[in-house]
Amino acid sequence: MKELLERLAEECFPYTNQGEVANYIPELAKANPDALGIYIISEDGKHHFAGESMHSFTIQSIVKPILLLLALSDNGIDSVGERVGVEATGKPFDAINVSDLRLDSHHLNPMVNMGAIVMCTLIKGSTYQEKFERILELIRELAGNPEIGIEEAVYRSEKSCGSKNRALAYLLKSYGMLNDDVEDVLDCYFKACSIAVTCKDLANIGFVLANRGCKPMTNERIVPSEYARYVNAILMTCGMYDGSGEFALRVGVPAKSGVGGGIMAVVPGKMGIGIYSPALDKKGNSVAGIQLLERVSRELQLSIF
Amino acid sequence: MKELLERLAEECFPYTNQGEVANYIPELAKANPDALGIYIISEDGKHHFAGESMHSFTIQSIVKPILLLLALSDNGIDSVGERVGVEATGKPFDAINVSDLRLDSHHLNPMVNMGAIVMCTLIKGSTYQEKFERILELIRELAGNPEIGIEEAVYRSEKSCGSKNRALAYLLKSYGMLNDDVEDVLDCYFKACSIAVTCKDLANIGFVLANRGCKPMTNERIVPSEYARYVNAILMTCGMYDGSGEFALRVGVPAKSGVGGGIMAVVPGKMGIGIYSPALDKKGNSVAGIQLLERVSRELQLSIF
Amino acid sequence: MKELLERLAEECFPYTNQGEVANYIPELAKANPDALGIYIISEDGKHHFAGESMHSFTIQSIVKPILLLLALSDNGIDSVGERVGVEATGKPFDAINVSDLRLDSHHLNPMVNMGAIVMCTLIKGSTYQEKFERILELIRELAGNPEIGIEEAVYRSEKSCGSKNRALAYLLKSYGMLNDDVEDVLDCYFKACSIAVTCKDLANIGFVLANRGCKPMTNERIVPSEYARYVNAILMTCGMYDGSGEFALRVGVPAKSGVGGGIMAVVPGKMGIGIYSPALDKKGNSVAGIQLLERVSRELQLSIF
Amino acid sequence: MKELLERLAEECFPYTNQGEVANYIPELAKANPDALGIYIISEDGKHHFAGESMHSFTIQSIVKPILLLLALSDNGIDSVGERVGVEATGKPFDAINVSDLRLDSHHLNPMVNMGAIVMCTLIKGSTYQEKFERILELIRELAGNPEIGIEEAVYRSEKSCGSKNRALAYLLKSYGMLNDDVEDVLDCYFKACSIAVTCKDLANIGFVLANRGCKPMTNERIVPSEYARYVNAILMTCGMYDGSGEFALRVGVPAKSGVGGGIMAVVPGKMGIGIYSPALDKKGNSVAGIQLLERVSRELQLSIF
Repeated sequence: MKELLERLAEECFPYTNQGEVANYIPELAKANPDALGIYIISEDGKHHFAGESMHSFTIQSIVKPILLLLALSDNGIDSVGERVGVEATGKPFDAINVSDLRLDSHHLNPMVNMGAIVMCTLIKGSTYQEKFERILELIRELAGNPEIGIEEAVYRSEKSCGSKNRALAYLLKSYGMLNDDVEDVLDCYFKACSIAVTCKDLANIGFVLANRGCKPMTNERIVPSEYARYVNAILMTCGMYDGSGEFALRVGVPAKSGVGGGIMAVVPGKMGIGIYSPALDKKGNSVAGIQLLERVSRELQLSIF
Repeated sequence: MKELLERLAEECFPYTNQGEVANYIPELAKANPDALGIYIISEDGKHHFAGESMHSFTIQSIVKPILLLLALSDNGIDSVGERVGVEATGKPFDAINVSDLRLDSHHLNPMVNMGAIVMCTLIKGSTYQEKFERILELIRELAGNPEIGIEEAVYRSEKSCGSKNRALAYLLKSYGMLNDDVEDVLDCYFKACSIAVTCKDLANIGFVLANRGCKPMTNERIVPSEYARYVNAILMTCGMYDGSGEFALRVGVPAKSGVGGGIMAVVPGKMGIGIYSPALDKKGNSVAGIQLLERVSRELQLSIF
Repeated sequence: MKELLERLAEECFPYTNQGEVANYIPELAKANPDALGIYIISEDGKHHFAGESMHSFTIQSIVKPILLLLALSDNGIDSVGERVGVEATGKPFDAINVSDLRLDSHHLNPMVNMGAIVMCTLIKGSTYQEKFERILELIRELAGNPEIGIEEAVYRSEKSCGSKNRALAYLLKSYGMLNDDVEDVLDCYFKACSIAVTCKDLANIGFVLANRGCKPMTNERIVPSEYARYVNAILMTCGMYDGSGEFALRVGVPAKSGVGGGIMAVVPGKMGIGIYSPALDKKGNSVAGIQLLERVSRELQLSIF
Repeated sequence: MKELLERLAEECFPYTNQGEVANYIPELAKANPDALGIYIISEDGKHHFAGESMHSFTIQSIVKPILLLLALSDNGIDSVGERVGVEATGKPFDAINVSDLRLDSHHLNPMVNMGAIVMCTLIKGSTYQEKFERILELIRELAGNPEIGIEEAVYRSEKSCGSKNRALAYLLKSYGMLNDDVEDVLDCYFKACSIAVTCKDLANIGFVLANRGCKPMTNERIVPSEYARYVNAILMTCGMYDGSGEFALRVGVPAKSGVGGGIMAVVPGKMGIGIYSPALDKKGNSVAGIQLLERVSRELQLSIF
């Protein structure tokens, strides 16, 4: 297995040249575009890795499934579903999915920025700092890593450059879909996106989702089975933005990408996978990361279709 | 199993009141809104059914995955992918997914009318009659039923009422994405949509897709494994129109609906399922059919997530 | 005046290089891109001209205000207004101005193809041939030129290449906004667009509109004053497609352009102007034609603002 | 004339029941829906009025042409045109006129909120307070009324409720079309919209525009003629939001409405008119105000078409 991962990573390494590191935030633009790492936790609890699997990077949009998990735990499926739709928007991650005359809950999706911002408001906590701490706590628990924290420079960079997210949040507010102070909500969202993780952390989180809410080895339950399945299903249809359809064909497992270069893949009943390679395609997904996942899926027969 | 299916069908029967029979074509409006049937072929090749499982109805959009299968067989994945995109459009089945200035292949999807019309042009045959015969032949083979034919009255009704599809086809032509005679192409498409099937037929077709291209019992290969997986993946992300996201959450298996009231569900590696209940929701999916599939999925643990 | 027109035409001649002759129809692509002509009929009934003012070309979209005039005469303002809106669409001439779920009359505009096609259905006549003859008759009367007829080659070219217009017409039909046979309606529309005119003809028609419905010199009334004003107002807000706003600033009079290279300008109470120069900008308006009108308007102080 | 105005105002009074006072800001919702007033300054400098012509209300969007005038004076036509387009958007006043992938200057219009916000950034001044003071100064000069100031309660109400405008401003910032601090720019914009005026003030301002930049009686020049014409042309095509087309047909003169209930109409070369009646139609235009203008235009033959 180790040999396989190393061989496939080597094969995919040239694809790092085909993408570009995210540059809408100065801090993200500093990433090394040549990096590529993978970490897999398999059914039997074994760990396998290759490349820069222990490099730390910001979680970015991969926090969206965690926000959803927490919102589901705090409110239940029906209540969350009333506030945020679940259909693919057919649009980019930061799309303004509003018709000229109205913005409805079914225009939103928890895997697209507007919907993820609403998720932050649904998480329980008396302040947004408290909500953020609950998000961080859940990530630490899912990853089995109490050391996880935020990357301050990225958080500050997001906060000072986040005009598009501010626009989206004020739009939600103007349509009565967000009642709290926009800056408070966004501070929580920006912090959540700036949480630093490694491929190993993502593999651990992915494993819990694959294992329907239970930790590897101990099988200790962290989240209810139905919420894990709910998240996996949304990852399948919407996890890779407007590249989700092609990803389903090429890789065939639920996954979530982030502009920090990470991908978390969930192989239901089998595996959690974490990938890192920050050179992105036009849709904001890691180029070499998808190539590597595609090869791993083919070799290990991971597609659920 | 039979008892289970009968109990669940009875539970779901009241939902037939919550939808409406398709009325954009006079012939379809004649369907009995109270009908509900299910047919399952399981891993071991056993057949299970309940309700009006032998009632004949037109396949409508459930022919789309067959058109895609045949287009893939005739042209390969890359060539089909260049002509028609695979992303969810976030829009209804007959959406005009065109920006003001252009229409690109990535605006299309084989499970949405425009993309399905293009599929007809990609199928080999010296005439559109020949193409249609190849479609019919493949359906007969997949369903193991040489008796399958078209319902003439529906075909004529579609042909005389099909203004929206004509608009879509002429739009494709005006953007250079369809070169043949529009009426020829549509005649083939309307005929394909008017093929009459039963729940049993759909269960057989679904089984072949679930079995990665091979027939039940004999395991005789009909289509290459990779094309079956390709179709299953697209069904997962786009098979239920703009209700695909919610269907993934509630049922969790690839499926395709048609406005004739049918649903074909594919449980990868396990089952083919055919459903019939013509009262539709606003998105064009069978109301009681989805309810029944949801219960069957929960009871038999069919979700792939 | 003659000298002025000749000097301005010479100044504007180089602009013919900046546009391109319409090429969506093979016949139109044969036009000489270097041509430039102008014909003015002034308040006192005098005629002034320069350049290729007697060259014959197809009227194309400049027939739209005539269709509107006739529809108004046959149905009255209220009835026409219920069928076709009057707001600028902010979109190109052949835009598909349909939201995902519906197409309403207020999405249409008589100066945009969809609305103009509906105008044809509103004109009285027992057949579409009869309707066309009434259109031709009105144009001959407005232009004071009984010789006006259609350019057969362009008509046949339009008819065989008109996929976009067919798409628009079938769309109207599918939304119940056009009840007659699509090919009949379009045959009338294509013929109307293929009527051959000269700058002089356009100047005469423009003069009648400027003179609130009456002929030059004799002041014989052809159309009611209120319909002429109605048409002038729509030309001001929508006559130059999505270039109408800029045209209002630069030239400041109601006008209508056609992809045949013509522009008809109406100087209320003062003048009718016909222009010909077939090299078009991206929006489908004559490049040198607009330049020439801008200079004429500035020199003769024609802006109504 | 006075009798005419009084009779027409009485005729139009019942229309005040057909609209609703703006309620997106609590302060505006306090307006008396039954009010109706008109003030006309005619060619000869005479003043005519009827109804509540001296009632004070906030200028709201009628400040947009003033912002444009000042931006033109400070930057010239070309420079303003590069930053903000001039085409009708076919959309409501606060539309998010952005395609999925980009926002360009030609999506903006100075008479629609996004474009008006950009106008504020183009006005010269070392601080936004200074810019605002220049706007106020120009309005006082145009209206010949040094007493004009802002209505504090409305300003504070706008500022605390302005989520939609904040969304639009952050959107502009995220696309690099607004570089200054969003709150600074909006503070200026909200103050400008909260300037309190009467029908008389609007009639005076309208007269200067009608008189191509010069005051009544003295003919003292306040703004260059070409800028006045530029503004008049944009008012004609875009001044009444997505009701501009119909207004052109019914009234036939450049005009601008505001959600405070005011309308300023410009009869080129002839008149300035101010109207007040705060019950609005769905598009945000004064119902009785448009009715009254339509009658005045018909009786006095004001249409420029």
